[in-house]
Amino acid sequence: MTRVRLLVAYDGTDFHGFAMNPAVRTVAGELSALLARLVRHHVEVECAGRTDAGVHAWGQVVAFHTTSDVDSQRLQRALIGQLAPEIVVREVAVVDDTFDPRRHATSRAYRYTVRNAAVPDPFTDRYSWWVREPLDVAAMNAAAAHFVGEHDFASFCRRGPEGSTTVRRILDAAWNQVDDVTLHFDIAGTAFCWQMVRSIVGTLVDVGRGKHRADEVPRMLTALDRNAAGAIAPPRGLCLRAVTY
Amino acid sequence: MTRVRLLVAYDGTDFHGFAMNPAVRTVAGELSALLARLVRHHVEVECAGRTDAGVHAWGQVVAFHTTSDVDSQRLQRALIGQLAPEIVVREVAVVDDTFDPRRHATSRAYRYTVRNAAVPDPFTDRYSWWVREPLDVAAMNAAAAHFVGEHDFASFCRRGPEGSTTVRRILDAAWNQVDDVTLHFDIAGTAFCWQMVRSIVGTLVDVGRGKHRADEVPRMLTALDRNAAGAIAPPRGLCLRAVTY
Repeated sequence: MTRVRLLVAYDGTDFHGFAMNPAVRTVAGELSALLARLVRHHVEVECAGRTDAGVHAWGQVVAFHTTSDVDSQRLQRALIGQLAPEIVVREVAVVDDTFDPRRHATSRAYRYTVRNAAVPDPFTDRYSWWVREPLDVAAMNAAAAHFVGEHDFASFCRRGPEGSTTVRRILDAAWNQVDDVTLHFDIAGTAFCWQMVRSIVGTLVDVGRGKHRADEVPRMLTALDRNAAGAIAPPRGLCLRAVTY
Repeated sequence: MTRVRLLVAYDGTDFHGFAMNPAVRTVAGELSALLARLVRHHVEVECAGRTDAGVHAWGQVVAFHTTSDVDSQRLQRALIGQLAPEIVVREVAVVDDTFDPRRHATSRAYRYTVRNAAVPDPFTDRYSWWVREPLDVAAMNAAAAHFVGEHDFASFCRRGPEGSTTVRRILDAAWNQVDDVTLHFDIAGTAFCWQMVRSIVGTLVDVGRGKHRADEVPRMLTALDRNAAGAIAPPRGLCLRAVTY
C-alpha cells in the first residue's frame, strides 16, 4: 500500500466545494475519478480543509492510498494533462503510510481578497468580493486583532454536529492594502470551523463600512450566538493558501 | 440624437467574441440587449476593435446612438448592476454625434500574457497561455523588433475580403518579464488585421523555444504567405488594453 500526497490549487468557482458528492461537480469527485483511471482501482481522497462551494485553494493538501506503483513525476504530468484547467496538482509525493492531511495539520492559512473600488473588474471578479463603499482599513485591523488567540467562535461558525466544539486558536489576522483597490485579509489558525473565515470577514467589512465599531468584536465573541456577528462574506474572495504540518 | 461612448472591460472566455451574432453569446449581444431595455429602443453598438472568441478587453471603446436622455452616471450604475460580471462598463460619456470608435482610433494597444512555468496556475489560466518549455526572452525581443514599422503583414493575417490591404504600422512591440513566470508582450499599432497579434505571438514563442531564429522574421514578412509564419497563439492570453484617439 502506498500513500500519496498531492498539493492542489483550484479555482472553486464552478465546483460545489471540495468534498465528494456524486450529485454535483466537486474537486474530490474530479480528482478521485481521474486517479481511479490512472491507478486502476477505486480511490478515496482526503484533504486538509474541505472548502465550500465557490471557495478556492492554492495549497490544499490531499492524500490517497493506492496499491499501484507510483512514479510521482509521471503521475503529476498525467494529472496536469488530464484534469480540467481549474484544478492543478502542484506537487506529488509518496509519504508515510500513516499521513493524515487533516489530523496532522498544525495550522491553516486563508486569504480573503476584497476589491474596494467604485467599479468592479471582470478579471478579478471570480477571486474577490467587490465592495463599492470606501473601507476604513485601520478600523478593520483594530477589529481583526480581537480574533487572535483562543476563543469560542460559536458566533462566527455555522453549527456543526451537536456537541462539537467551536473553540479555535487564531495565530494571525491582518488586512493588507496591496494596491489602490485591493485588500488582502490573511488569517492563520490551528483550525477553523464551518464558514468561520467568511463570517469574520463579513463582520470586519461591516466594521470597515462603519456599520459596527472595532470594539464591538469582543462582545460578539462572548455572545456565543450566530446572530451577534455580521453577514457572511461571499465565497468568491476566499482561498485556502497553505497548510502547515 | 445622443451619441454615447462606453469604455468596456470584459473577460472574453465565455463569449463568442465581441461582434453581434444572434446565434451565440457575444459581448455586443449582451450590451445591446441591456441598452435597448434601458433606453427603450433598438440599439446598435459599434466598437474600436472586434475581438475574437475568447479574447479579453480592458479598454474596448464602444459607441451607440440613442433618442433617450442620458445621465452618464445613472446609465453606468444600471449597466454595472445588470450586466453579467464578465462585462464591466468602466466609463460612460456623451460625445460628439460624429464619433466613430473604429475610424477615429489612431492606435490600439494589445497585451499578450504567457505563463512560462513547469506547472500551470488555475487562477491565471483564463487570461494567459501556459508554455512549459523555457523561453529565450532576449531572442523573442530581438525577433519582435523586426515587426516595428510599416510592413505588409500578409504572412501574419488571416485573409480578409478580397483586395483589402494587409499593410499596417506597428509602433511598439516588446516582451517584459513581469515576475519569475509571467511574460507580457505589449504591442501597439495604428491598426491590426485579423488574428495578427496572435500570429505574431505564436511566431515569437516559437523563436523563444528555439524553433525559429530571430533573424528569420524579415523573410517571414517578405514571403507574404500565411504558411511562412508560426502557429497562432491561443486567444486566452490576448487582451485589448487601450485605444487612442
